[in-house]
Amino acid sequence: MYMKQSFLFTKTIKEIPKDETSYNAQTLMRAGFVDKVGAGIYTFLPLGLRVLNKINNIIREEINAVGGQEVLMPALTPKEVWQTTDRWENFDALFKLAGSDDKEYAMGATHEEIVTPLAQKFTLSYRDLPFAIYQIQTKFRNEKRAKAGLLRGREFSMKDLYSFHVSQEDLDIYYKKVKQAYFNIYKRLGLGEITYLTYSSGGAFSKYSHEFQTICPAGEDLIYVCQKCHSAINKEIIEEQKDCPECGGHDFKEEKAIEVGNIFKLGTKFSKPFGFQYKDQLGEVGDIIMGCYGMGPSRILGTIVEVYHDERGIVWPENIAPFSVHLISLKQNEEAEKIYQNLISSGFEVLYDDRDEISAGEKFADADLIGCPVRLVLSPKTLSENKIEIKLRKKDEIEIVGIGDLLTHLKNKL
Amino acid sequence: MYMKQSFLFTKTIKEIPKDETSYNAQTLMRAGFVDKVGAGIYTFLPLGLRVLNKINNIIREEINAVGGQEVLMPALTPKEVWQTTDRWENFDALFKLAGSDDKEYAMGATHEEIVTPLAQKFTLSYRDLPFAIYQIQTKFRNEKRAKAGLLRGREFSMKDLYSFHVSQEDLDIYYKKVKQAYFNIYKRLGLGEITYLTYSSGGAFSKYSHEFQTICPAGEDLIYVCQKCHSAINKEIIEEQKDCPECGGHDFKEEKAIEVGNIFKLGTKFSKPFGFQYKDQLGEVGDIIMGCYGMGPSRILGTIVEVYHDERGIVWPENIAPFSVHLISLKQNEEAEKIYQNLISSGFEVLYDDRDEISAGEKFADADLIGCPVRLVLSPKTLSENKIEIKLRKKDEIEIVGIGDLLTHLKNKL
Repeated sequence: MYMKQSFLFTKTIKEIPKDETSYNAQTLMRAGFVDKVGAGIYTFLPLGLRVLNKINNIIREEINAVGGQEVLMPALTPKEVWQTTDRWENFDALFKLAGSDDKEYAMGATHEEIVTPLAQKFTLSYRDLPFAIYQIQTKFRNEKRAKAGLLRGREFSMKDLYSFHVSQEDLDIYYKKVKQAYFNIYKRLGLGEITYLTYSSGGAFSKYSHEFQTICPAGEDLIYVCQKCHSAINKEIIEEQKDCPECGGHDFKEEKAIEVGNIFKLGTKFSKPFGFQYKDQLGEVGDIIMGCYGMGPSRILGTIVEVYHDERGIVWPENIAPFSVHLISLKQNEEAEKIYQNLISSGFEVLYDDRDEISAGEKFADADLIGCPVRLVLSPKTLSENKIEIKLRKKDEIEIVGIGDLLTHLKNKL
Repeated sequence: MYMKQSFLFTKTIKEIPKDETSYNAQTLMRAGFVDKVGAGIYTFLPLGLRVLNKINNIIREEINAVGGQEVLMPALTPKEVWQTTDRWENFDALFKLAGSDDKEYAMGATHEEIVTPLAQKFTLSYRDLPFAIYQIQTKFRNEKRAKAGLLRGREFSMKDLYSFHVSQEDLDIYYKKVKQAYFNIYKRLGLGEITYLTYSSGGAFSKYSHEFQTICPAGEDLIYVCQKCHSAINKEIIEEQKDCPECGGHDFKEEKAIEVGNIFKLGTKFSKPFGFQYKDQLGEVGDIIMGCYGMGPSRILGTIVEVYHDERGIVWPENIAPFSVHLISLKQNEEAEKIYQNLISSGFEVLYDDRDEISAGEKFADADLIGCPVRLVLSPKTLSENKIEIKLRKKDEIEIVGIGDLLTHLKNKL
């Protein structure tokens, strides 16, 4: 994919948006990735949608790899299924609405109430199990305050995976696979090193559940990172838990963190109210054992901005940058166009700043704010020597290379 | 993409669903493409989501080709913007809800109220115009009755494109381009021949707007097809309009049809209430002229099922079939697995029925119901001669071809 900046309808904004207090949303708005429609409600603009889709696709690939089958459940969910699980009154922050068919609905804040009867319809015997269903869908939560930008929205995206098993042992095997898939995802998103498997309380069915927490000063959570292994425990359990449940270590460091995923052994919590059972080899009936696994792509996008930025703007990890190369022409559009076409045909994703009426300083400031991994600058001076300037967003050094050697240099850097 | 049917968690259903009256939803439910959650509310299952994504991608390619810039606006929209355009009380079938922040919201039934102020933020002068913004988003409508399956849902998908111009002439040029893009889309979806540009009443700004209507006995609309050219007029205007607005012909044939798209010259209807203006070359201020262009991917999916089926099930057009090839093994799984792998590595999209406990008759019935364009059957008899059976879903003839020649035969047929 490629795009000329003169074509893009969005522009960067110099002023920090007044009605927004979070760094991630302020910066994403200034750089033209999102627009704010209301508190906790955003439009994804062309640059932001590109990043969101890249995050979604990485998640999709890794969840497909552990056998997740993608579906798309509705956002509009009937009252009855929430009553079945006793969550119509008890689920925090459900948006409720009345239909002109005299029925009541909730906007999906999570989808156990939809996926459980769905799985039930297609499960006739133990031979149909296990399987796992997921979606990447919009969720709605009626938050009183929504001040953390993309970290806590009233409307946000979620990958939610649900698995169905004949036994706890079978769930345990799958749970472990998904845990590994989550690590793979965070690694590919550039968050691997700073994201910790975090033990949290587990409910009736298992001693622990797990959160994935990314260390970040903007985080609303406190976690306690084991100094011996790459895991942590959350605030909820630090009081009763003196040892690391992963390795037995007992030296912890307190860190602020953002929850970027959670996985949970549900057991029979949802299968029981729906009467979701299976028949085993002997015709005996058993309750279905479930797991659920959440991860929020839009929250992850906000987290990455909180983690990867400097005073000039965003510094996108390569795998999810809106474009890998930002080509800037300083009034050398004829030659820059050739380079642009050459980069495109070599498979690079290029944003090309071909705008005439914008100064060099503004173009550089925009490139730093938008944060593509590589910046190329073609100026009268470099062109006179048949050269081009190349700079990584995350480094300060500038290199001047021959235009003929550009592709080789780029392939080494990306 | 490829999939083994033993892996797929959905199954076909023999009985016609009792609580569903429309053919499209009954059949999509029986074949495992959608599941019904409530009246006019469906889950897209793995097969259905594949088709929906293919439709979305064809639309996306053609709208990108006419310069549409993709965004994703929220479904949750604040009351204030609907009050600005006087539609909070007047828009038919808005789902409304109350936030715990003491604000009221509508679930987006259309997005003029969101896109107009968005475009306004980034439009400083005539030099920024024209541009066009679109999304593929879920829409919500509080329908009293929802009986037409995917043709009229409470929750449904929509591609909505909006364009912004300095003048009526500039809008006219763009409107014509989008009209052509729509024809391209219907052609690629297999609906070209039976979809008519249909004149309808146009509001204050233009004499006509246009619907795209697909002829189909299940249609809720009546259109009058000009017998001289490939266009039609709708019921609304047949009484005052005696001649075809396209060619002047006056011989019409009444047909039932489904509206699969509409395009509309909005003029200043939305720019005026938002005070959305531009400055021209001389510094003079003018109102922005807008167009809007809708198309519903989930409704199109339902339409295709209404149009392309026989008594045994769906007959998908090739471009949007969930898989192009349905390979059936009749207890020849070892050899079938080789053919499956060979088809995959040759780039075919294959659904492979590797299920052991299912009879040949049931496998054939499933294949006909699911409706992939090509069916391959490997049986003991064909395998003994190193051959395989090949049949097109839309034809009755069966061919027996050498396994070594299979790829060549498939390439000729697909």
